[in-house]
Amino acid sequence: MSEYIEHDKTGLSVGVVDKKLFTFAQPPGELTLENGSTLGPVTLAYETYGELNPDRSNAVLIMHALSGDSHVAGYYSNDEAKPGWWEIMVGPGKGIDTNKYFVVCSNILGSCMGSTGPGSINPKTGKAFGLDFPVVTIGDMVTAQKALINHLGIKRILSLVGGSIGGLQVLEWCLRYPDMIVSAIPLATTPKHSALTIAFNEVARQAIMADPNWHKGDYYNGAKPDLGLAVARMIGHITYLSDESMRHKFGRRLQDRSDFSFNFDADFQVESYLRYQGSKFVERFDANSFLYITKAADYFDLTRQYDSGSLVKAFSRAMAKFLVVSFTSDWLYPTYQSKAMVKAMKKNGLDVSFCEIEADWGHDAFLLPNKRLTDLVKGFLERVYDETKR
Amino acid sequence: MSEYIEHDKTGLSVGVVDKKLFTFAQPPGELTLENGSTLGPVTLAYETYGELNPDRSNAVLIMHALSGDSHVAGYYSNDEAKPGWWEIMVGPGKGIDTNKYFVVCSNILGSCMGSTGPGSINPKTGKAFGLDFPVVTIGDMVTAQKALINHLGIKRILSLVGGSIGGLQVLEWCLRYPDMIVSAIPLATTPKHSALTIAFNEVARQAIMADPNWHKGDYYNGAKPDLGLAVARMIGHITYLSDESMRHKFGRRLQDRSDFSFNFDADFQVESYLRYQGSKFVERFDANSFLYITKAADYFDLTRQYDSGSLVKAFSRAMAKFLVVSFTSDWLYPTYQSKAMVKAMKKNGLDVSFCEIEADWGHDAFLLPNKRLTDLVKGFLERVYDETKR
Repeated sequence: MSEYIEHDKTGLSVGVVDKKLFTFAQPPGELTLENGSTLGPVTLAYETYGELNPDRSNAVLIMHALSGDSHVAGYYSNDEAKPGWWEIMVGPGKGIDTNKYFVVCSNILGSCMGSTGPGSINPKTGKAFGLDFPVVTIGDMVTAQKALINHLGIKRILSLVGGSIGGLQVLEWCLRYPDMIVSAIPLATTPKHSALTIAFNEVARQAIMADPNWHKGDYYNGAKPDLGLAVARMIGHITYLSDESMRHKFGRRLQDRSDFSFNFDADFQVESYLRYQGSKFVERFDANSFLYITKAADYFDLTRQYDSGSLVKAFSRAMAKFLVVSFTSDWLYPTYQSKAMVKAMKKNGLDVSFCEIEADWGHDAFLLPNKRLTDLVKGFLERVYDETKR
Repeated sequence: MSEYIEHDKTGLSVGVVDKKLFTFAQPPGELTLENGSTLGPVTLAYETYGELNPDRSNAVLIMHALSGDSHVAGYYSNDEAKPGWWEIMVGPGKGIDTNKYFVVCSNILGSCMGSTGPGSINPKTGKAFGLDFPVVTIGDMVTAQKALINHLGIKRILSLVGGSIGGLQVLEWCLRYPDMIVSAIPLATTPKHSALTIAFNEVARQAIMADPNWHKGDYYNGAKPDLGLAVARMIGHITYLSDESMRHKFGRRLQDRSDFSFNFDADFQVESYLRYQGSKFVERFDANSFLYITKAADYFDLTRQYDSGSLVKAFSRAMAKFLVVSFTSDWLYPTYQSKAMVKAMKKNGLDVSFCEIEADWGHDAFLLPNKRLTDLVKGFLERVYDETKR
């Protein structure tokens, strides 16, 4: 997820919001995970925007991507410089209109933004989990979110919205709890990671694990594997952009110099950008969470996890109305992968709208201002909301 | 450059060859480099195949890519398992026919396969250069090759052939010493690195420099930055393939297991492949050479180095006949970059043939068996050779 977005504070915003914590435990006090192990108690950090209507039919659940958090819109305080990560989409009168819908966003299981993850304290040892944290799946993340939704008293979700790894959660929800979901908007996502996407994630993980400070995940009381995590992030940033977007944004322009350095400094703007993104990221993200979330995403495979053997069979479980959106220059989750989903949905007679948006900005396009995307989301939500009232 | 090629020893081969060394010094004993510094004496490792004809008109100079060497074909000994890196193209009766042509390939300046590079002994200190080695350019590599060609008594080169970074050298030769070149075959290459290509190289360099064993380049008497170099190589390998080739070659197949490990082992074949490629590479390649050669490639820009400001002006210097070849799935040096060159060549009235070959194998395609490519190269060489006799 890019942080290269300019924000305009003059627009409408949900304003100041609070991060809340929900801690739950299933009997006998733990959450049973897909790998067979248990984990508990589990805390999810979440935020809500707008009001739940009396018949509890206007809930929109937003799922964040790899490095996101529950702070999807608004500001934690009046002097916070930067709003939540999807401020352009979520707020009064926006694509996901907080005057109409009750919006919920929770930080995913395995992350490091308030929810339980490898950096959390393991109650059994009193120390951070590190690699003792179980390898969670996208399904486990969804199971945890379900507990939060129950806690909020929501029986049916009007819409699930998420891009990238958030989109994986959207799809998982639709197959895991089909009768809870009225509609779903998977953006720039895929029914399963390609070998290319796994390859990028694996190299990023190797960069982290190659850092001697990683120390097999046990670094919470010492130096952190910042250099490895920065390289991992830089790899990620390349995959979020595209050849064309990088050409527009950077080309071969030099950074603060008129000629080459003839050493190994950053000569080009693109080098400088990547170094900056890498160094910023280590201030806010935990290397182990990067490992766990990318692994969960690599494991995700709709043709596998419901003993389905095929996408068509997988979507035979689904009952939601879908709006599927892909972006022309996204080479991390290319359009052909969205099309395969759409085809499988249609074969099951599902109500599906599909749009490939022309955009030069690669995978990141779903996070950038795009009137087409905003209009699509807004129109789709209005339609499905109206249809619930009939 | 992939090492994933199966070789058939039963085919025709140049057989056993020797690596030779040529050491030269320009007065006053040093080579003047583009960055203004001097370097010397300079040694180039090289190999020759076939015989130079009496009028010295049949010399073909092959330029290798990032991690290649002078060993383009044949075997160093009768029991060597693997032949040179372009055995499928170079040999008796092959695309570059050693029965007809005198083939020369030299290891590039800055490399670590016998030619002078950052791992060589600095005569001024008696220690390995490390980062005291000057940042050489593609132009410097070509200047050094030119000294070798002079030494071999060759006044005109029938053809220059090279793919990827080898192709950069081909292009540089054509503009630097235009009247020495009869023809040139730049394969899967570019007139300048895009921001995307620079980005990949930069992240790979950062992976090396993040390894504490790198020690600012001074590691020749201690532990080497193997983990960083392995990550750099893995990044490279992703760029040499393509989404489609990875899907064919690996898909989501698991490596020696029927279910996920639920830990951070290599679950997928593609992970295993990348780890293997990374670990093999560190046995044979020097991390500093990786830094220097990628930097030289990133600096390369035909629109810049001849004060040209445009490709059209740059190619106004060229006199060679060209065969330009790109590959459909190459996203490191995509076809549009070759087409830009071809357009500029044509605007200068040059004799140009261009072919985009349909291939699923990404950038690596130029190294893989491909009858179309072999036929194109063979036919082009025959034509230009015949034309020299008229």
